Amino acid sequence: MALISPSRRLRRTPFSDGVEAAGVSAFTVYNHMLLPTVFRSVEEDYRHLKEAVQVWDVACERQVELRGPDAGRLMQMLTPRDLRSMLPGQCFYVPIVDETGGMLNDPVAVKLAEDRWWISIADSDLLFWVKGLAYGFRLDVLVDEPDVSPLAVQGPKSDDLMARVFGDQVRDIRFFRYKMLDFQGRSLAVARSGYSRQGGFEIYVEGSDLGMPLWNALMEAGRDLDVHAGCPNLIERIEGGLLSYGNDMTDNNTPHECGLGKFCNTQTAIGCVGRDALLRVAQEGPIRQIRAIEIHGERVPSCDRPWPLMAGDTQVGQVTSAAWSPDFGTNVAIGMVRMTHWDEGTDLDVVLPNEVRAAQVWETFWV
Amino acid sequence: MALISPSRRLRRTPFSDGVEAAGVSAFTVYNHMLLPTVFRSVEEDYRHLKEAVQVWDVACERQVELRGPDAGRLMQMLTPRDLRSMLPGQCFYVPIVDETGGMLNDPVAVKLAEDRWWISIADSDLLFWVKGLAYGFRLDVLVDEPDVSPLAVQGPKSDDLMARVFGDQVRDIRFFRYKMLDFQGRSLAVARSGYSRQGGFEIYVEGSDLGMPLWNALMEAGRDLDVHAGCPNLIERIEGGLLSYGNDMTDNNTPHECGLGKFCNTQTAIGCVGRDALLRVAQEGPIRQIRAIEIHGERVPSCDRPWPLMAGDTQVGQVTSAAWSPDFGTNVAIGMVRMTHWDEGTDLDVVLPNEVRAAQVWETFWV
Repeated sequence: MALISPSRRLRRTPFSDGVEAAGVSAFTVYNHMLLPTVFRSVEEDYRHLKEAVQVWDVACERQVELRGPDAGRLMQMLTPRDLRSMLPGQCFYVPIVDETGGMLNDPVAVKLAEDRWWISIADSDLLFWVKGLAYGFRLDVLVDEPDVSPLAVQGPKSDDLMARVFGDQVRDIRFFRYKMLDFQGRSLAVARSGYSRQGGFEIYVEGSDLGMPLWNALMEAGRDLDVHAGCPNLIERIEGGLLSYGNDMTDNNTPHECGLGKFCNTQTAIGCVGRDALLRVAQEGPIRQIRAIEIHGERVPSCDRPWPLMAGDTQVGQVTSAAWSPDFGTNVAIGMVRMTHWDEGTDLDVVLPNEVRAAQVWETFWV
Repeated sequence: MALISPSRRLRRTPFSDGVEAAGVSAFTVYNHMLLPTVFRSVEEDYRHLKEAVQVWDVACERQVELRGPDAGRLMQMLTPRDLRSMLPGQCFYVPIVDETGGMLNDPVAVKLAEDRWWISIADSDLLFWVKGLAYGFRLDVLVDEPDVSPLAVQGPKSDDLMARVFGDQVRDIRFFRYKMLDFQGRSLAVARSGYSRQGGFEIYVEGSDLGMPLWNALMEAGRDLDVHAGCPNLIERIEGGLLSYGNDMTDNNTPHECGLGKFCNTQTAIGCVGRDALLRVAQEGPIRQIRAIEIHGERVPSCDRPWPLMAGDTQVGQVTSAAWSPDFGTNVAIGMVRMTHWDEGTDLDVVLPNEVRAAQVWETFWV
């Protein structure tokens, strides 16, 4: 692996001092911000995530804030998911598409009030799209990136750790709901959510000055729970089928191709951009779709480019994320496969940079 | 420095194989793509750039293509620079601003035809803003990211190297003009431009399949010119006052603050977004502006965050790029300074992470 050159453009976060003190060894860049990828090793971090509790600097999940009388209207323009039933206190995973139905981002929308929303974004400058629409449609809404940096607490002991810092009320927060809870006299949105299958929370830290105090409070409160700095774990997220925008999908893909059709209510999501295109897709169904892929043999290298999936001489898809899973004793992967070859158990070949491997298509992920 | 974790989301380029073979040692991420930052060392690369010729993988300067009857109208909406006099064959550096006059990008616009433009972008998803406007205003234009990857040839021997591959006509290309030249039977836009003060060209490589053939052709043709793989050089670009979007300016800044007022013809750029805001700024002038900053003493560390510029106890600006310059025997830097303290020769203090240094404001850059 090569080094990453520091610059202001690769923004530090309110938690960077804590991340460095914890011995981060590698980063990726996400929304122009540093996102840790490894502390001890990907395998050690994985084992620890499944057994204890970790604090994750996910400040790179930047927020796009919509505020004003047209905030709700604009939010519904952005996504084919019907938001009419959504209440303040809820978080919705929302595919965001352009006029052709191509995915621009797959964020979590947080409804703060009827006229105030946060969109907690994946890796693309969604702010620009939202600002462009707001301006083009002359909507009565403010759109900007507030000083809000999510900090995640993930792992089976998350409830115990969080209860020590925020009180036992965290235990009652339901999945994809949030409560406003107090930390050092400030009220923060604490949601039961996060980019792992191990359970946990995301704290929307409003005000960079609160970053290190909260980081330190969690680290101190969790000492006997073996709390450790962590980060989204490549192996665990593939096992769990958690997609990554830019890896497993791009603006070339519709939500239906990404298996996100269940989050599209295109018929009733009146005013949504891309509605015409997606109504067509919803009717006909996608011709390729995300699948769990098992790659046989030894540990695969880092998947730094799409790996073609072949049926004989014909390319029928590609793998975009892959890792060796210690728990399942195989290479777990995420790919996009054409409908002719997406059935459970289909045998394919996957073309790695230096070799061809046998692979198999699975309908469901490992956990 | 930490490592960078490979993933498909940090896109490889059509030249990545060449970059790796040349022994790249560090990257940054730019427009979701890998951009080399160091080959031998920043200092060695710097010396070589000033004396010989380098081939740079700047595929990360992605293009936003505008095509169709409203392409020209949309292009003028994007920038306060008056584009009416611009002809096909020209490249214009164009500040792009939002409705408040805040910088969204500082790209080079390439006019291919009256109804076809490329915008060669700095590090932000400008595509989203352009698509949002096109959709909101129902313009008759196609907006997308084509398969075009710039390859730069920079350094004093650039003309000689380029003439060997593209013919002597490259010598006649004027600054910020391009010609369509032939390589292996394909016609490519070759512009006299690039992100250094050493002279050179940018080749807009249309078609990823041409990437490595062109890379190899340049490397072979330039063997006796001491051609080497290179990249935008931190020291050289600061000496030359070449700004970096995300480092030296953000959407918080107007073009006037960035010293780009000379590229704004706000009065006559009819239809430009942000015109109202910028007319006000043009009239009153900015209250802070980019300046060359000399930082005294030993070699400074990497500028990975804004360093406050202080006049006594008052913050009057910040430094956002800095490096030790072997040629000038001092630390060269770029900062934004309030008008109260921006005069040539003003003494200030700059707050580095672990110490305070004396610094001085200069009106002009080193070269």
